[in-house]
Amino acid sequence: MKSLNNVLAEGTYSVEKEDLLCYGYDASGLDVLPAAVVWPTTAADISKLMQFAYQNDIKVIPRGAGTGLTGGSVAANDSIILSFEKMNRIIEVDMRNLNVVVEPGVINGDLQRALKDQGYFYPPDPASLNTCTIGGNVAENAGGPRALKYGVTRDYVMQLEAVLPDGRLIRTGVQTKKSVVGYDLTRLLVGSEGTLAVITKIRLKVLPLPENVITLLAAFNSLEYAGKSVSRIIADGIIPRTMELMDRMTLSAVNKYKNVGFPEDIEAMLLIEIDGSTKAIAADIDKVANICNGFQGKVKIAEDSASRELLWDARRAVSPALYKLSPTKINEDVVVPVTKVPELLSGLQGISEAAGVPIACFGHAGDGNIHVNIMTDKNDKQKYDEAEKLVRKTFKLTLELGGSISGEHGIGLTKSKYIDMELDSVNLDIMRGIKKLFDAKNILNPGKIFPPAAGSDVR
Amino acid sequence: MKSLNNVLAEGTYSVEKEDLLCYGYDASGLDVLPAAVVWPTTAADISKLMQFAYQNDIKVIPRGAGTGLTGGSVAANDSIILSFEKMNRIIEVDMRNLNVVVEPGVINGDLQRALKDQGYFYPPDPASLNTCTIGGNVAENAGGPRALKYGVTRDYVMQLEAVLPDGRLIRTGVQTKKSVVGYDLTRLLVGSEGTLAVITKIRLKVLPLPENVITLLAAFNSLEYAGKSVSRIIADGIIPRTMELMDRMTLSAVNKYKNVGFPEDIEAMLLIEIDGSTKAIAADIDKVANICNGFQGKVKIAEDSASRELLWDARRAVSPALYKLSPTKINEDVVVPVTKVPELLSGLQGISEAAGVPIACFGHAGDGNIHVNIMTDKNDKQKYDEAEKLVRKTFKLTLELGGSISGEHGIGLTKSKYIDMELDSVNLDIMRGIKKLFDAKNILNPGKIFPPAAGSDVR
Repeated sequence: MKSLNNVLAEGTYSVEKEDLLCYGYDASGLDVLPAAVVWPTTAADISKLMQFAYQNDIKVIPRGAGTGLTGGSVAANDSIILSFEKMNRIIEVDMRNLNVVVEPGVINGDLQRALKDQGYFYPPDPASLNTCTIGGNVAENAGGPRALKYGVTRDYVMQLEAVLPDGRLIRTGVQTKKSVVGYDLTRLLVGSEGTLAVITKIRLKVLPLPENVITLLAAFNSLEYAGKSVSRIIADGIIPRTMELMDRMTLSAVNKYKNVGFPEDIEAMLLIEIDGSTKAIAADIDKVANICNGFQGKVKIAEDSASRELLWDARRAVSPALYKLSPTKINEDVVVPVTKVPELLSGLQGISEAAGVPIACFGHAGDGNIHVNIMTDKNDKQKYDEAEKLVRKTFKLTLELGGSISGEHGIGLTKSKYIDMELDSVNLDIMRGIKKLFDAKNILNPGKIFPPAAGSDVR
Repeated sequence: MKSLNNVLAEGTYSVEKEDLLCYGYDASGLDVLPAAVVWPTTAADISKLMQFAYQNDIKVIPRGAGTGLTGGSVAANDSIILSFEKMNRIIEVDMRNLNVVVEPGVINGDLQRALKDQGYFYPPDPASLNTCTIGGNVAENAGGPRALKYGVTRDYVMQLEAVLPDGRLIRTGVQTKKSVVGYDLTRLLVGSEGTLAVITKIRLKVLPLPENVITLLAAFNSLEYAGKSVSRIIADGIIPRTMELMDRMTLSAVNKYKNVGFPEDIEAMLLIEIDGSTKAIAADIDKVANICNGFQGKVKIAEDSASRELLWDARRAVSPALYKLSPTKINEDVVVPVTKVPELLSGLQGISEAAGVPIACFGHAGDGNIHVNIMTDKNDKQKYDEAEKLVRKTFKLTLELGGSISGEHGIGLTKSKYIDMELDSVNLDIMRGIKKLFDAKNILNPGKIFPPAAGSDVR
């Protein structure tokens, strides 16, 4: 890929192996060595590069921080990785209209901190928020614990600037709270996993910080009772901002990793937060505590913001902590209607016991989004194959319960062979048509989302 | 269109002129006589009809209650109107998961009443809610006063069942709160104005009713000060559920029409509602009253729900009432960032005075969405042409202020010749590509949204 020096300035890209090694993988554990990595600084750079790539049939893979769990940013052979470290400015902060404009490389946590200083917040808060980028969040339609009350990334993206695969610049959406002018291209790009356009600028809605937040921990001797508490709380019309579940295996893993002193003689814990005006939330917290007590849950309130932060540090450490239990985990993020959470959890327990393969469950129980971690070892082929069979069983159970095979991680590479369990051929036909309309040459993040051709191996 | 009797059962359609006359028009004032009107009862009926229409190149126009103001459901020559009176069932009410499933012909107000009995509500509340259908709301991505706090139709549609122009049935979305599985076809269909698919079933998110609502009226001697109060309230981090503006001409028209006793010696009135827990909203109402006082507004609180309903009846009567002032009004619904509302209002006053054409302004000031009513007479050609010139000026001003030419009415026929003021050729290219992908023969609601070919007359 020597000819890149005709399109790009020196120092804005690299073809050195030590650089390429850093940019081919993501948190899915998959990796492919790209041919080049480019660090653009402007949309114009990207437009020029895409024109070049389009003319020369070169694959391009946009990449945020590589925290994705389904391989959405893994390189392809002979591809160029577009990495956004140098496009990380917060361009505009318009608090009077409750929105901000950012470049795609801004880290979610950096935006949160900048907003907090001024009394505002950006609701989507994936567990990887101190690493992941807003561009990646938009591409994957990221969620996080607060999605329960506040919704997902899609609900906050007002405008996008993006470069189409042929190099044309497109600006979608409006800087107003509503608009009905043509088709909603903004939301078509959100969650499209970098397969339709390269996002170069994002206007996000933000909200004033709530007056107060109360955090409650509830410990249960039954995973099912924890699940039932969750669905009763929602049915009673209370909408906490978060309602996170950790099962026994998860609690034990976090203790080993962070030593936060979670009880280990219980079957499940809920971490519930309610925000709003101080007076309003006191009443809701009482109701929530009563519901948990009714299912034999022991309730504790986190007294101050320091103890709250400790709990959240622990919650965010769950995913890395689980690696302490076994060398490999297959991490799925299924989602079911919240009333079906108890059935999902007991079904997963059944699947685990029948196969003799440990499954750790945690996640956003309040919106029915459970992270299912099948514990295994990649280097023990037989063991791994056994574990992988449970993925299809997990998805089958999820879909039977009216759910979806991915709540927030996306399809990427790892789930592409399962997507037709959820989407029928009419949906896939239309989606393939859209992909072709945007990217006739299939050069932008190829091989992601869509089912692989028969006989190929994507894992 | 005699051959319809091969596809449709007797009594499910009509080709009689007295029926056709009732179904060719909508609230835009435009009308075209269709060749037939069909009242389907199932998605299977519609699928069969669309296959027939597709094979025979017959245009089909889906129609809700015809309350649209931009001609989105106006017939085309030799077309079939699909009308949904017989598909008006609320199919499923799942309060434990906070959602309902409805057929497209359900009237918004009927759904509101059914939910209210159980302690829930569906936030989108267009002024025409006692007439308009949920199917039409989805097609137009309808808003309403409460959009300020709760968002628009798009934010509540979870799943759609629809028939594609070639007759294939498609089911999009999920019944869970989140999912990232392929492209977001649900939100591509929302707001597509019946040009991509015929919607046959809809799952909507609903919310628990707030504990309390307080309604406040503020009277101003300056339209600009009313606008400044609006933008200060938002900037101070208060999010009322509605913040409606009426100017002097609007107030006078409503008084003549409904005799509600609005003061007429003022320049503008704001109708503000705050909802939430009783304790929380008391504090917010004080803040709002103080801000209005600071701009010389006189504030009054509506004491009970009866007086509140009276105010809202009056507000919803604005659009019909304005016809009492002049025989024709050109009704636009521009939207600007909320800080720009004062500039928009004073700009419109300038446009009105310079041309000597009255313009009445009212609408959802809290989210920057102003309904601009240019008062004229269709039967006086010179007068009408003068008035129509102000449309382009209004849009130009709106776009200069960072706005959009339609907040909630859509493009339909009446705005199609202006859409390229807002959308560039890249956007229009992609949108045309999407239309072609769904509807290669251009039989479904043709001529809507996209700019007419040069030389044609759409009005």
